[in-house]
Amino acid sequence: MNFASDNTAGVCPEILAAIAAANEGQVPSYGGDPATERLTRKLRDVFETDVTVFAVGTGTAANALALATVVHPYGAVICTDEAHISTDECGAPEFYMGGAKLVTVPSATGLLTAMQIEAAMARAVEGGVHHVLPEAVSITQATEWGTVYSVDDITAIGQVCRRRGLYLHMDGARFANALVQLGCTPAEMTWQAGVDVLSFGATKNGALAAEAVVFFNPAHAAGFERRRKRAGQLWSKMRFLSVQLEAYLEGDLWLRNARHANAMALSLAAGLACIPGVRLVQDVQANEVFAAMPDELIEALLAEGAVFYRWIEVPGESDPVIRLVTSFATTAEEVERFTQLARTTAAGLAA
Amino acid sequence: MNFASDNTAGVCPEILAAIAAANEGQVPSYGGDPATERLTRKLRDVFETDVTVFAVGTGTAANALALATVVHPYGAVICTDEAHISTDECGAPEFYMGGAKLVTVPSATGLLTAMQIEAAMARAVEGGVHHVLPEAVSITQATEWGTVYSVDDITAIGQVCRRRGLYLHMDGARFANALVQLGCTPAEMTWQAGVDVLSFGATKNGALAAEAVVFFNPAHAAGFERRRKRAGQLWSKMRFLSVQLEAYLEGDLWLRNARHANAMALSLAAGLACIPGVRLVQDVQANEVFAAMPDELIEALLAEGAVFYRWIEVPGESDPVIRLVTSFATTAEEVERFTQLARTTAAGLAA
Amino acid sequence: MNFASDNTAGVCPEILAAIAAANEGQVPSYGGDPATERLTRKLRDVFETDVTVFAVGTGTAANALALATVVHPYGAVICTDEAHISTDECGAPEFYMGGAKLVTVPSATGLLTAMQIEAAMARAVEGGVHHVLPEAVSITQATEWGTVYSVDDITAIGQVCRRRGLYLHMDGARFANALVQLGCTPAEMTWQAGVDVLSFGATKNGALAAEAVVFFNPAHAAGFERRRKRAGQLWSKMRFLSVQLEAYLEGDLWLRNARHANAMALSLAAGLACIPGVRLVQDVQANEVFAAMPDELIEALLAEGAVFYRWIEVPGESDPVIRLVTSFATTAEEVERFTQLARTTAAGLAA
Amino acid sequence: MNFASDNTAGVCPEILAAIAAANEGQVPSYGGDPATERLTRKLRDVFETDVTVFAVGTGTAANALALATVVHPYGAVICTDEAHISTDECGAPEFYMGGAKLVTVPSATGLLTAMQIEAAMARAVEGGVHHVLPEAVSITQATEWGTVYSVDDITAIGQVCRRRGLYLHMDGARFANALVQLGCTPAEMTWQAGVDVLSFGATKNGALAAEAVVFFNPAHAAGFERRRKRAGQLWSKMRFLSVQLEAYLEGDLWLRNARHANAMALSLAAGLACIPGVRLVQDVQANEVFAAMPDELIEALLAEGAVFYRWIEVPGESDPVIRLVTSFATTAEEVERFTQLARTTAAGLAA
Repeated sequence: MNFASDNTAGVCPEILAAIAAANEGQVPSYGGDPATERLTRKLRDVFETDVTVFAVGTGTAANALALATVVHPYGAVICTDEAHISTDECGAPEFYMGGAKLVTVPSATGLLTAMQIEAAMARAVEGGVHHVLPEAVSITQATEWGTVYSVDDITAIGQVCRRRGLYLHMDGARFANALVQLGCTPAEMTWQAGVDVLSFGATKNGALAAEAVVFFNPAHAAGFERRRKRAGQLWSKMRFLSVQLEAYLEGDLWLRNARHANAMALSLAAGLACIPGVRLVQDVQANEVFAAMPDELIEALLAEGAVFYRWIEVPGESDPVIRLVTSFATTAEEVERFTQLARTTAAGLAA
Repeated sequence: MNFASDNTAGVCPEILAAIAAANEGQVPSYGGDPATERLTRKLRDVFETDVTVFAVGTGTAANALALATVVHPYGAVICTDEAHISTDECGAPEFYMGGAKLVTVPSATGLLTAMQIEAAMARAVEGGVHHVLPEAVSITQATEWGTVYSVDDITAIGQVCRRRGLYLHMDGARFANALVQLGCTPAEMTWQAGVDVLSFGATKNGALAAEAVVFFNPAHAAGFERRRKRAGQLWSKMRFLSVQLEAYLEGDLWLRNARHANAMALSLAAGLACIPGVRLVQDVQANEVFAAMPDELIEALLAEGAVFYRWIEVPGESDPVIRLVTSFATTAEEVERFTQLARTTAAGLAA
Repeated sequence: MNFASDNTAGVCPEILAAIAAANEGQVPSYGGDPATERLTRKLRDVFETDVTVFAVGTGTAANALALATVVHPYGAVICTDEAHISTDECGAPEFYMGGAKLVTVPSATGLLTAMQIEAAMARAVEGGVHHVLPEAVSITQATEWGTVYSVDDITAIGQVCRRRGLYLHMDGARFANALVQLGCTPAEMTWQAGVDVLSFGATKNGALAAEAVVFFNPAHAAGFERRRKRAGQLWSKMRFLSVQLEAYLEGDLWLRNARHANAMALSLAAGLACIPGVRLVQDVQANEVFAAMPDELIEALLAEGAVFYRWIEVPGESDPVIRLVTSFATTAEEVERFTQLARTTAAGLAA
Repeated sequence: MNFASDNTAGVCPEILAAIAAANEGQVPSYGGDPATERLTRKLRDVFETDVTVFAVGTGTAANALALATVVHPYGAVICTDEAHISTDECGAPEFYMGGAKLVTVPSATGLLTAMQIEAAMARAVEGGVHHVLPEAVSITQATEWGTVYSVDDITAIGQVCRRRGLYLHMDGARFANALVQLGCTPAEMTWQAGVDVLSFGATKNGALAAEAVVFFNPAHAAGFERRRKRAGQLWSKMRFLSVQLEAYLEGDLWLRNARHANAMALSLAAGLACIPGVRLVQDVQANEVFAAMPDELIEALLAEGAVFYRWIEVPGESDPVIRLVTSFATTAEEVERFTQLARTTAAGLAA
């Protein structure tokens, strides 16, 4: 019953097998190998356009490198105040961008709106040379609150970005989870809606350590190669990074994994929703469940060996909130065991 | 016959097996797992002292993070002008250190001397506030020219560092190759000789992607954890990084691999040395061979499918120089085939 | 009737005279001159302790250099969301600190509280390595809203800083204005209350271009000299910077200038407060007045040649807010003319 | 007899008078004043083209900001190993550029050649993504060795820059000294020869603290304004910076000052050249004299109160070398006194 994070799971068997299979003979290092070339072709198919692709080992590196490539050191990025880049990367974007700032706006659902971007830009422009001027917007799909932007949401954001001369970055650490929820194509959820650069996550959804930065306009990728190298993010034995992503996309493994994780989250949510005293505080649209419940219930669940995190307070909610994350490795049995445990414990506490 | 780099090889089977074996169940992410803890204990045994250890995915990251931790942004690092940190990391040290400079001194053999450090410090101190003041020295063991510092060499450098208040960093991308050459202990080659922080390489010697930064004084490691995180170098599924290093050290795999690679290099060198027109331009003390030979011979070898790089010119040597690198995966047969080919080709050209 | 900023005024005659008087003969450059030495002695007298002093040309440089000296690149600074370092320095602190973040908390009055600092620290510590950890607090005295911390306020903040291991920085761009308002000594308002490093402003209060960074513990100033040089903030003809500050302190010129500016602000405030439809939205404790008034009145005043800025909206205040700043150069006649104009215009609009 | 630097002199009377004259009334701060506008117009006349101009307080700031504007953080700048940006700015260029490197080439005369640039580029390109790629060349006019590039020299460098896609920066800390030596126009010595951006120095030649960064193509200046602000280099009372430069250019004051300084240097050189045991080690083409002489002579001169620096060793020269710098404030009498002293002392030592 480990719902701490999608990072506590191991590697999806198909991906591990691909790593083993790639361990044949000598190939050029630093990305000159055939697997790296195949990966780019594969992602062009997936996104139905001419993408420029760079694999890296972590999501933080993907986000920070993507933003540094499109934002000047004296610029800024608009995002929500719960964005992973703002709260969970220990300042990586600022480090990579050379000191550029994140301009954060509040969001109860994790979703940023086109109107908030307009307002932030208006304030920045008014300040003239004394204020940092945003050059990009970063949205997380699915969000840190387990919610998902619709294609229309993204399109609206993309339009204000075009109008204001802003790059649109998507942190897709849980890209697949959002995609299967929307049921649209990768193209529809990204470049067709106005996304310029995507952190395409695979680690949380089954890879060992593999993310790809995907540019939808080759001109925007200028300098990325050297930035990756000088960040120490260019693997020498690159084939072992590339084949992870290749296997991830092969036979829609990524979509199957995401569908499973999302289904487990929905099942968790359904099981918890009907327990008296438990309230879901966010829509469950991906692989995360946020539930408010009495402190005694939380303590009892932890005491029984369930693993999860307490989350930040939600305004208007007096009980503490916990976060439950599911993954490709979560089993229906675990979910069942957890919800059953919650049901019985809650009943016991109520008695 | 691929002698391009020790990075063109794949993963040593024992290490791949360890990765597969680690893929069991859910464990805490970001280094809270048991393998990561075991690794630190293992390295304490290996170095016979209380080391502080941080695993990262690339050698460039290891070097740049190590230096950034001990050098201020307004400081500098003394190294040779052929140091990997100076010529092959696309400015990673400068990026991570926040703009601190590398003060390079020439070295025909890749080895830095205590006297050169003294001279560089004297010049810097004289310049006062207008000049950057070195705060660390970085030496590569084995060097980029395949040579090896003796324990006495390192001790002499360590002494001048102490006297001048400089940290001593060792780039140990080929640490094992140097160690088996000297036949000393890891402790003798590092902290007992004055080394403060070590980039302990494993990737070139058989790992998939794994290096460790090893501090010999815990106080010097302050801030490293956050630096690693904000650099996007903290793997979420850290167990898969840690077990590589664990397997690498297990049963002296690392030493066996290095002994093999060094033997292959010696064999290559011996085979080439007796060919008329070929000259070894550096002592072969690790797993690299640098040989000067006529251009036609080089072209003929490449045409036959041998893979290697032309290297920079060596003063006093009119012929071009090539670099041949061996690894755990190099076979005696490959070496034999190559030297034979060189012998016959040279004879043909001479005819 | 120019109330746009205290920066629109010129140089106080005594300071201009000191610059002219310093233009005698050749003296060592870069701070080796006698005036620079005298300045340090003078500031030791003023602060009644052994200060370490560095003069620079702008307030932004003073703040950014002070913070960079005490905060690591992976650290953070707690301040209000209206702090000059956060909104009006175009990211200078982030640039100088090498990417460290500002953690901002809301403040309706411009004043930060000890409790807010405690809360921000609690949140940061909880986040572990994924979150930036604040290493300093920055308060502005007088604040950007023209309010002033009492000595007790600062002492309370100083205590939480000690407890939490945070440096306390004071942005004293309007230090003199706050000091004369409190009627305490410079020592009481700074190091005796827990301030570690001060940006001691002079430009807004009569200098040409001169600020001093003052450290109250010499150990905290380590590295400052090189940071200033590599920032291009070390003047070669340093005497002309030092004598500005010397003249500023001589015969209490700084206190007289500040008393005059504050008196002019109070006079403005008194004149406006009694006009129907005009409301002061902040206490007037230094040399700034913030007043809400109908848009037509603002437009009419501007049309009559008055110079001032519209300010950000104040919650709960439906009318727009203007900022009026006075300086050593503001005349009673100007103030009288402006308030009279406002009175008549308001009456006309009401009619 | 102070020949330590052109920075030990004070301010030229005409410039001091302009500062005093500018101290009239209230004007917009941060460069919105009339003097700043006039300065741009004036420099357009001087350079006979549409320049974009930004005034800053120090030469180090001018150089570092200019380079940061045209070079990416992952790029590099080619310069000589004696360039002021490399040896005397404590890493300011690296700091401002966000870690980009200086690629230095040796130069016995301080002059860089087109051929050296070609060679450095060839090496960098060969290294691929592992090596930093230069994006700019920086030359100093007059050089740190008091020598001067001819217009043909600069044109040849400009041509290789065009061909290689490199920006050409000129560090003109002693621009006027070079200009009067060549007798050409400012246009001929800069943009007509291929210079893209110039650090136009005034401080060494009579200003208090004033330099201008001059872009010859407005498109290259993008972002400069925000870079200057976030560097703390934007003066609030900007008029006092702009009027220095205006007065400097007025009535050819800058050229008169430079002619005087150069004449004094030539006079010094002539006086020293005929003293037995003294050798000029560089051509005297601007306002600096480098002379080798016996150690006893140097000590005797210093003992008599002469002020100057010992300089770095010159290959092939067994005696130590001193540097003598003249300025607008150097008097013929001082020069006469010094050369006379040297002559008599040398004679005495020889006896």
